[in-house]
Amino acid sequence: MPRPRRNAPAKVERIALGDLRPDTEALLGRVAYLKLALFESASAVAGRATDLGDREAITRVAAAVLDQHSELTALIEARGAVSAAAMHPFTADIDRYRRRLADSGWHESVLTLHLSAGLLDDFFAGLAAGLPEPDARRVVPILQRDIGHDALVAVLEQGLAVDERLGSRLALWGRRLVGDTLLVARSALADVRDAAGQPASTEARRVEPILNDLIAAHTRRMDRLGLTA
Amino acid sequence: MPRPRRNAPAKVERIALGDLRPDTEALLGRVAYLKLALFESASAVAGRATDLGDREAITRVAAAVLDQHSELTALIEARGAVSAAAMHPFTADIDRYRRRLADSGWHESVLTLHLSAGLLDDFFAGLAAGLPEPDARRVVPILQRDIGHDALVAVLEQGLAVDERLGSRLALWGRRLVGDTLLVARSALADVRDAAGQPASTEARRVEPILNDLIAAHTRRMDRLGLTA
Repeated sequence: MPRPRRNAPAKVERIALGDLRPDTEALLGRVAYLKLALFESASAVAGRATDLGDREAITRVAAAVLDQHSELTALIEARGAVSAAAMHPFTADIDRYRRRLADSGWHESVLTLHLSAGLLDDFFAGLAAGLPEPDARRVVPILQRDIGHDALVAVLEQGLAVDERLGSRLALWGRRLVGDTLLVARSALADVRDAAGQPASTEARRVEPILNDLIAAHTRRMDRLGLTA
Repeated sequence: MPRPRRNAPAKVERIALGDLRPDTEALLGRVAYLKLALFESASAVAGRATDLGDREAITRVAAAVLDQHSELTALIEARGAVSAAAMHPFTADIDRYRRRLADSGWHESVLTLHLSAGLLDDFFAGLAAGLPEPDARRVVPILQRDIGHDALVAVLEQGLAVDERLGSRLALWGRRLVGDTLLVARSALADVRDAAGQPASTEARRVEPILNDLIAAHTRRMDRLGLTA
């Protein structure tokens, strides 16, 4: 059997998110739209809360996500671009993602918010580290900021404490959503090159180590809730 | 026929919102919850926009309303109260109001946001002027702040320019929602006394001049859009 063309498989393991060279405007547009979509989901989840304290807690998460969106669109506008135009190429993908995760129970939606924001903030903060300066140091802190995950975990723990069957439902949901969420990350690699100028998406196995880190962090989030990832 | 008990009908015309003595915690709780409900409506309206520019514009309005909510709950918490508990007595009334105005077309919902926030901010800013200090000077500026009405008017004008039949639909909707919105204002008068210590709600005709000012401002908003109030 012919061997794979590449001769240095050891190097494959070394690729890291920060080694990639994303396009600033594409990254800003994509993440700004993602944050807009996540904000709308968060405020809808807040509106469906039966407990007013939970509703306020999740509204604060929505507010934090909205701040991220607003700061990203401000960066787009500061570059002389129109934020709606910069976001537009990414709406279809992200809308599809959102539709796939809609129509779930309320606790499932809270879990989506926690896991999806967690995974994608990790991913895009790592990717933004590879932006040219001063873009990297402007974008990375926005995405590293905590949107209030502890509050979401507290809401979920409260639900898990009173409903015995919720644990297995949420475990199932967490496993389902991680696949869809990784697709959102993966599609962002389509407009990225690595430091050597190679398109990052053309060779899937070079990207796998990056995704493995994201999955490991996802598993830790599930563990914290006592859920099997 | 017996004459009405009061002998000084001329005075009736003089009552103004600022003459009333609202209860700080009740006013804060009611308006904080109203802002939470309005924020959720605004972000839902934003999410239903077909144009991404409109969606961003309305998201900015939602953000401004959310800021009002957050600042009001911060004032509640600064008094040592729990904001969820302070808002709780007012949820049923305001939820009913919101349900009555749900299920409308998209432009109708934008109009609701514009007219309802306009009328109720006018009303509650006026009422908050009668709070004891330092409450009045903390609360009034929050409610006098422009949440972005020009952006809402621009969205509506764009719709009216391309759809000939929209004008009569919106005129009808504006007339319908003003009645429901005045009920929200009127119910806030239930926990208010005037400067003489009289319950403000017991004598409806003493309150009418206040409501007339609100209706006049409402009519000016309709006029600006070329709609018959």
